[in-house]
Amino acid sequence: MLNLNEIKKARTRIDSYIHNSPVLTNSTLNKITEAELYFKCENFQKSGSFKIRGAVNAVLQLMPDELNSGIVTASSGNHGAALSMIASKLGLQIKVVMPKNTSKIKIDNVKRNGGEIVWCDSNQKSRDKILNKLIKKTKSTLIHPYNNKNIIAGQGTVALELMEKYTNLDCVISPISGGGLLSGTICSIDGMNTKTNVYGAEPAEADDAYRSILSGKIEINDTTNTICDGLRAQLGSITFPIIKKGVKNIFTLDENEIKYSMRLIWETMKIIVEPSCSIVLAAVLKNKKIFKGKKVGLILSGGNVDLDDLPW
Amino acid sequence: MLNLNEIKKARTRIDSYIHNSPVLTNSTLNKITEAELYFKCENFQKSGSFKIRGAVNAVLQLMPDELNSGIVTASSGNHGAALSMIASKLGLQIKVVMPKNTSKIKIDNVKRNGGEIVWCDSNQKSRDKILNKLIKKTKSTLIHPYNNKNIIAGQGTVALELMEKYTNLDCVISPISGGGLLSGTICSIDGMNTKTNVYGAEPAEADDAYRSILSGKIEINDTTNTICDGLRAQLGSITFPIIKKGVKNIFTLDENEIKYSMRLIWETMKIIVEPSCSIVLAAVLKNKKIFKGKKVGLILSGGNVDLDDLPW
Repeated sequence: MLNLNEIKKARTRIDSYIHNSPVLTNSTLNKITEAELYFKCENFQKSGSFKIRGAVNAVLQLMPDELNSGIVTASSGNHGAALSMIASKLGLQIKVVMPKNTSKIKIDNVKRNGGEIVWCDSNQKSRDKILNKLIKKTKSTLIHPYNNKNIIAGQGTVALELMEKYTNLDCVISPISGGGLLSGTICSIDGMNTKTNVYGAEPAEADDAYRSILSGKIEINDTTNTICDGLRAQLGSITFPIIKKGVKNIFTLDENEIKYSMRLIWETMKIIVEPSCSIVLAAVLKNKKIFKGKKVGLILSGGNVDLDDLPW
Repeated sequence: MLNLNEIKKARTRIDSYIHNSPVLTNSTLNKITEAELYFKCENFQKSGSFKIRGAVNAVLQLMPDELNSGIVTASSGNHGAALSMIASKLGLQIKVVMPKNTSKIKIDNVKRNGGEIVWCDSNQKSRDKILNKLIKKTKSTLIHPYNNKNIIAGQGTVALELMEKYTNLDCVISPISGGGLLSGTICSIDGMNTKTNVYGAEPAEADDAYRSILSGKIEINDTTNTICDGLRAQLGSITFPIIKKGVKNIFTLDENEIKYSMRLIWETMKIIVEPSCSIVLAAVLKNKKIFKGKKVGLILSGGNVDLDDLPW
């Protein structure tokens, strides 16, 4: 478990590179859920998602020789785009290994931010192979999307900002993929001495975190047939123990529930969010009894949606 | 011309019924336009558009016998929805005359807010005939969507809020349809003793305002083949003289320019806006020389978009 102080230090470090994103409320959604919802809007964040927080926090702590050799990562998109943004800003070489089936907007997002894309097949094995070859060849430094303490500390600043603004939340719900955002959220809130519960939400089609908590060891996804292209990764050796210790529960949601929640947010809040984060609202809608009358923080982690490929 | 004091009184009157909507900025759009843009986000307004401001201001000034007989309006959607919302809140009868080809979301928006829809054909003649019959039969009071001083005063509160937050704007651009929002904006800014110029933006396919300013009399649209379903109305006898006196210029935009601006706002700002208001950004993009280096207020008037019928 990282302590709150490390997350506060991360916040100071990344402060001038990120937005303190707004927290929105919506009376229609409060009425529907019979809860008080506080949406932390990282879809408005620089690079279009919360990933810039961890990326900046990690890059700013590299040694001079590491900076010189450039950096590399494997990412389905948002981490790659964020890392490209900060690397370009600092004048660093940046290569991003991405599966060929990544959505167009996420590819463009990496390119626009100055990242060089290296393609791999859409499976962990191909990704690892190409990544390792690249590191060996270029001596560049890997910035892992989530299994990295500096990344986790950076992502923890989302909950820090949210809880500083709304000190009395009963619970916070974060999407879960590799677990960087959720474990950062847990570490942040754990250090605050509140009674705030932290929940995770993931697609039933990529429910490795749910099964890992049940079995007590890291489970893998054989398939990831979900529209949540940001939630297809596996838990990591650093994120899993934190989540295991600190998460109150993990909710799994089916594809229709996720699509419905995405459209509901678009229609009522008039903001663009990815299905990978509307899933937190789906968790509230599906578990109304748990959240009824509660003050609930929901992390809307990103807004990089391909407008030519909407799920309705 | 209404004076600023009337608009300030309207603001006090409607204060508890509306949001003071946020003003957003976006560094990518500033870079593209080489200007400083300040977006007044009425897409986040109650009922999904600025129309609630005028509607509340008008209804709250009705006499007791008028309230008893109920109210009626003709509206392509946003005014009808807004009027339905305030009427329902106050327990009044409300009937809305709407063309049969109105988009589904705008129809649902009226129904959800408690309005009773009376259908007409998609032309001014049919609309007027059905409206007049209804008024005669029910003795209800007509709340015109724009040709009404109390409506104009209400809409003027948008610019009032914007200019109170950003006192030194070089110019403000408003969409123009019947002219309620634009004339309210002109009245508001005229009373402030600033050097702020007010511009209008309208579709080339419904350019009655542009032609009316040229000819000096109210021109009509023979056709209105535009995706801007909120910008198809004709200027009114009250709005036209104000606009004629106070508008610096009216820009006309073609359909592709409007669609492009809509998508650009969705992608960069991650907010949902109607083409009927993204048109103000299209005006800046098309007239870069005029706005270069300037502080520009843009009124994003609404966010009621049919997600099943996007223009790309």
